[in-house]
Amino acid sequence: MALWKSVGNGTLEGISRVADLDAAKLTITLSKTLKPIPPRHTWTFGTIMTDHMVIAEFDPEIGWSSPEIKPRDSLKIDPASSCIQYGTTVFEGMKAYIDPNGKPRLFRPDMNMARFARSAERMALPPFNTDQVLALIKQLIIVDHRWIPQFTDYSLYIRPTLMGTRLGLGVAASDHATLCIFLSPTGPYFPSDESSKVKAKPISVLAESNVVRAWPGGTGGHKVALNYSAGFLPLRTAQKEGYEQILWLLGEERRVTEAGAMNVFVVVGRDDEGVDLFTPPLDGTILPGVTRDSVLDLAHAYMAGETSLPGTLPLIHARERIFTVADLQRWSAEGKLLEAFGAGTAVIIASIGKIGFHDQGELKNIVLPAHENGIGPIADAFRTRILDIQEGKEEWKIWSVPVFEA
Amino acid sequence: MALWKSVGNGTLEGISRVADLDAAKLTITLSKTLKPIPPRHTWTFGTIMTDHMVIAEFDPEIGWSSPEIKPRDSLKIDPASSCIQYGTTVFEGMKAYIDPNGKPRLFRPDMNMARFARSAERMALPPFNTDQVLALIKQLIIVDHRWIPQFTDYSLYIRPTLMGTRLGLGVAASDHATLCIFLSPTGPYFPSDESSKVKAKPISVLAESNVVRAWPGGTGGHKVALNYSAGFLPLRTAQKEGYEQILWLLGEERRVTEAGAMNVFVVVGRDDEGVDLFTPPLDGTILPGVTRDSVLDLAHAYMAGETSLPGTLPLIHARERIFTVADLQRWSAEGKLLEAFGAGTAVIIASIGKIGFHDQGELKNIVLPAHENGIGPIADAFRTRILDIQEGKEEWKIWSVPVFEA
Repeated sequence: MALWKSVGNGTLEGISRVADLDAAKLTITLSKTLKPIPPRHTWTFGTIMTDHMVIAEFDPEIGWSSPEIKPRDSLKIDPASSCIQYGTTVFEGMKAYIDPNGKPRLFRPDMNMARFARSAERMALPPFNTDQVLALIKQLIIVDHRWIPQFTDYSLYIRPTLMGTRLGLGVAASDHATLCIFLSPTGPYFPSDESSKVKAKPISVLAESNVVRAWPGGTGGHKVALNYSAGFLPLRTAQKEGYEQILWLLGEERRVTEAGAMNVFVVVGRDDEGVDLFTPPLDGTILPGVTRDSVLDLAHAYMAGETSLPGTLPLIHARERIFTVADLQRWSAEGKLLEAFGAGTAVIIASIGKIGFHDQGELKNIVLPAHENGIGPIADAFRTRILDIQEGKEEWKIWSVPVFEA
Repeated sequence: MALWKSVGNGTLEGISRVADLDAAKLTITLSKTLKPIPPRHTWTFGTIMTDHMVIAEFDPEIGWSSPEIKPRDSLKIDPASSCIQYGTTVFEGMKAYIDPNGKPRLFRPDMNMARFARSAERMALPPFNTDQVLALIKQLIIVDHRWIPQFTDYSLYIRPTLMGTRLGLGVAASDHATLCIFLSPTGPYFPSDESSKVKAKPISVLAESNVVRAWPGGTGGHKVALNYSAGFLPLRTAQKEGYEQILWLLGEERRVTEAGAMNVFVVVGRDDEGVDLFTPPLDGTILPGVTRDSVLDLAHAYMAGETSLPGTLPLIHARERIFTVADLQRWSAEGKLLEAFGAGTAVIIASIGKIGFHDQGELKNIVLPAHENGIGPIADAFRTRILDIQEGKEEWKIWSVPVFEA
């Protein structure tokens, strides 16, 4: 149960009436010196930060403070704060792109905002008007627009973060919070050799049987900080064994849930014409990814004849269904496992080339068919199409949203 | 797999040879003004902080910095730090007590230090020599010794915290970390009415069937930040329904795992003489609590005739075993459920008076037998005995450790 609810009129209603987040109250303090933009080959994901950030603070007595855009800096955080001691952070991952007219665009920001609000509620953090968060994001992009990369496959990653800042060690919800939005210019999450013809180097994933990412009754369906760190140790072990990411499993039947920090899709050949495109259903253990949803939507529209997809493709029967490591093995043995890929904001679409798994103590691999440019035709079609929509080269529904209102 | 290992000679050996944590390198900068110690009725758990803190920082190129004791303050933390974005904090909870000779003492600190190291490893954080952490804790207590309360049931709570400080949004382990140790004077976690004869007001707990605290393959057996925040929302709901804490369950059979942030014990009458004392086994979903271990150890010693316990007690058959909500119902219906209590550093022993649970949508309660002073004879015996050991009034093994070496 939430203590307050954003009612859209500038107030949060609930146990008391306090101020809602209000982008109209924004104050902007520009940095006196702007950083040079480093060459793009140095842009390891999420390490280069732009000049400014948005800050707003929630106090249970008064509500949300007037938001500020100010020079990006460290925050002063008490070591006894809720976000440090008990992991009460929620966040979003979004990207801004430059369209062919040189204007910045966002991709389906409404989905991120809705998920951001759900995540905050799940962590018992204060609510906020999501339209105001989006307005603040747009303002920050305008201030730091020189950081939006102009080349394809590069974008400005956006990280809205809400952290619990209650000072106190009692094990209870945080009634104080800080909203911090910052930006990071970014290229491909898994960089390819620039000199090669390979568009996107396929990644290898190791199916993890001991550590479980999420569980029924857990927080796997929300974008919360605590979903990630438990996977760092097995990820390091997997990388030592030569794999780039983990394929997360659930239960004794070894259901496939996610791949690294991405949703996962597999393309399985049908006996008749066409292919199946499977991704696990949103049962609370799977993050409801925006890219995941976009792939499913485009696949359904393609089958309904409402849109085309690039390339010469078969019929694609997209469906959310549970599948297991044993299913992958069987499909692979039958020659039906045509493609596998991850989908997420950071990676867009990442081709999976190899799936390692342990079979009675022995490490085995499912090797996916190789493709000249590193990615199978179906994954490539979704990747190209989504990127074209994101970069404003193609219109689809109202997914691509200009940052400037007109 | 850990990248380095503390080998006890001042270095961490591993992928490189870097400096281990070294208390001999400690520098101390005292606060110019000392805070007044607020009256003890204002000491809500973990909200009043002492004057100083320990800080040491880990850099993968050089290892651990020279530790510092300095005035307690906020930390400068980048919002893109691992501990904020991905919840890479581990911590410990310990207490310092004043013995009858006026000397500060710690309770079984070796157990906390071993668990602290295991938690750090589980979160893929850098390792450290635990003897050095303990030496730093003792130094900090000496500096802030005026804050150790002199009255029974009050103590100086110690919170060693290790947080991942890698700057970067890539989903991977933090190779930078900050160790921060700070102190907070504390009284009873669940305060009683001071004017009443009740020693310890029994708490009520609500069995939670929808949200799961920990699961097989998760981190429930480690003391990590991320174990706590997912419980804040159901805790708020439970408190709205009149319960103080949650009784965490696991699986369709509704196994009892923990109570709030405590381990849980039940006392069940036997048909023959004596009682059973049950607590769930350490299967990876249960925190290996120091107080939990102390209760089991004292119970076994009592049965072996190696020690006595205060009061006139029956034979106590202590055993780790799985039990469910249905078991509690059955024992209660048969009149055998004599006591239930939580055990943890913050609460020591907290008597449980009522256990709520949902039975086909209906909220029912298991009401435990009432006791004049608020706590049953067996819980009270362990509480008194453990507190006496903690406060240095009774010796048992080498559990109580003086802060001054002699």
